[in-house]
Amino acid sequence: MKIGILGATGAVGRQMLQCIEEQLPECEEVRLFASERSRGKTAKWKQETLTIDVLNEENVQGLDYVLGAVSASLAKEYAPLITGAGAVFVDNSRYFRLFDDVPLVVPEINGEDALKHHGIIANPNCSTIITMMAAAPIAKISPITKIIASTYQAVSGAGIEGMRELTEQVKAISEGNKVEPHVFPAQIAYNCIPAIGSEQEEGYTSEEMKMQYEGRKILHLPELKVTCTCVRVPVYRSHSISFSLQCEEPVEPEQAIKAIKAFPGDVYADDFLPMPLDTSDQDLVYVGRIRRDLVFDGGLAVWCCGDQIRKGAASNAVAIIRYLHDHL
Amino acid sequence: MKIGILGATGAVGRQMLQCIEEQLPECEEVRLFASERSRGKTAKWKQETLTIDVLNEENVQGLDYVLGAVSASLAKEYAPLITGAGAVFVDNSRYFRLFDDVPLVVPEINGEDALKHHGIIANPNCSTIITMMAAAPIAKISPITKIIASTYQAVSGAGIEGMRELTEQVKAISEGNKVEPHVFPAQIAYNCIPAIGSEQEEGYTSEEMKMQYEGRKILHLPELKVTCTCVRVPVYRSHSISFSLQCEEPVEPEQAIKAIKAFPGDVYADDFLPMPLDTSDQDLVYVGRIRRDLVFDGGLAVWCCGDQIRKGAASNAVAIIRYLHDHL
Repeated sequence: MKIGILGATGAVGRQMLQCIEEQLPECEEVRLFASERSRGKTAKWKQETLTIDVLNEENVQGLDYVLGAVSASLAKEYAPLITGAGAVFVDNSRYFRLFDDVPLVVPEINGEDALKHHGIIANPNCSTIITMMAAAPIAKISPITKIIASTYQAVSGAGIEGMRELTEQVKAISEGNKVEPHVFPAQIAYNCIPAIGSEQEEGYTSEEMKMQYEGRKILHLPELKVTCTCVRVPVYRSHSISFSLQCEEPVEPEQAIKAIKAFPGDVYADDFLPMPLDTSDQDLVYVGRIRRDLVFDGGLAVWCCGDQIRKGAASNAVAIIRYLHDHL
Repeated sequence: MKIGILGATGAVGRQMLQCIEEQLPECEEVRLFASERSRGKTAKWKQETLTIDVLNEENVQGLDYVLGAVSASLAKEYAPLITGAGAVFVDNSRYFRLFDDVPLVVPEINGEDALKHHGIIANPNCSTIITMMAAAPIAKISPITKIIASTYQAVSGAGIEGMRELTEQVKAISEGNKVEPHVFPAQIAYNCIPAIGSEQEEGYTSEEMKMQYEGRKILHLPELKVTCTCVRVPVYRSHSISFSLQCEEPVEPEQAIKAIKAFPGDVYADDFLPMPLDTSDQDLVYVGRIRRDLVFDGGLAVWCCGDQIRKGAASNAVAIIRYLHDHL
């Protein structure tokens, strides 16, 4: 197995390299691609030193898969080169996610969709993956019709720069210096910023609408309605989501908890609180505080946390390759 | 006008002293009360130096009002002494809030309830006050039937000790030292803790149920259903709440925005994001991001922020005295 990583220098790209080592022991070669600016830089993988290059028609040859951790516009631009060379493109950008002929996959939930690909498979939005990992076992009991969600999103959602900005702001404040936001629209240290992504559709942001549109596609529930409010909080890694859901039929908390415990990739926290700090840098989604919802008749209130760089991005993408390799 | 503050050394008690100076120019005497441990300590008020004492049958004489910023058990213990001396007890603890003969008051919403007191008036829970300040103008358009809320609560909700704990943890981490939580059940720096208060009623915490029970009483909507998830975030002051609501009749976002703009004590943020950092240490509740809800037919999604020590506690209590004084 030979894999390329497009966007190898970012937080997600670096994590992908590590996840390949963890999840794909049969991978014998990795090639790292990034922008011109990073050409010639190196990275360690197993015992090897890999040199970063710019993706082109020559160096794409022979790859089985390319993992994409670049912007939507770069994903669009490079996709024909990748698929033209016969590699499957597993892309983490939003660009292909809602294309009819592109599967949008969380392997534990709808892995079988990946098998129907035409050269491109999309990796869902980070908060959407984590929320759907908590919701999917419940949707198997009875189809979910409604979700109202509020997110608590870590600064790593804005990559390495986002993490650096939080560190620098905390330091500046402790030294009595002024804080100038660059990555986020306002100071994130000791603050919450209630908007992520660009505004669209009657005041909802792009990030907020992803949970409805991508959630529908992942769960195969085209009628699912989702109200989502996305909020950035001063946490480094691991997104948290508080949500209420209603299914077609009433679901008891005990049924949901049992289903979550049996679902691969989920942990139900019976006797502790899932928190971002404890769920960082690992691949499982932690679910807790399942309560009978007081508004949705027969519905449930849920809290969940998962590492957004891993399960919300890199490890989910690598798990798609794992799934394809095991099932084709 | 003569006012006593019971619990004068805490974050809320100190803020009450400042709010009296700001909101009650007719107040000619303030007496500060706290525990034995603080007896003899002093505090500045206007040009005076006030000495803290333990409340007793003598020093309560002649007071018109006593503001309570102590625990439920101390509020219960001292109430007979205060009302027996003819002072009105405006209590910030949870103890009296749901008593039938005790008004639970946010002056801008249900000030007239305060006039029917029998010696005790209760100040609502902090997140409840801030949420209801955003919801009340909408409830006037059409009665609210359902609220699903997630909170982003500042460490000041746990008083001065909570604020100190965040500062000390950030410092310890920056120096590479281990963090030991004392006030909160886990590290709060760079984390979110999804539970506030003791657990009760099918997994909801005491803090979460307050929004339903107190919200019903403040809005005069005994059938109101509220699902609330309370989350502590690493912010010093100002609680934020993300919520969806449904009314008996559909409400358009424009109607709600107009009503909020016309409501005393509220600011609607047309062209900026209400954030805890910008709404700290002032008395207004900032509301923003009103969107047509995608789950509740004819409902709305709302974001709001307010300073929990001021509007969520001290200044609301002082405003109750202001209201009584102006209307009796």
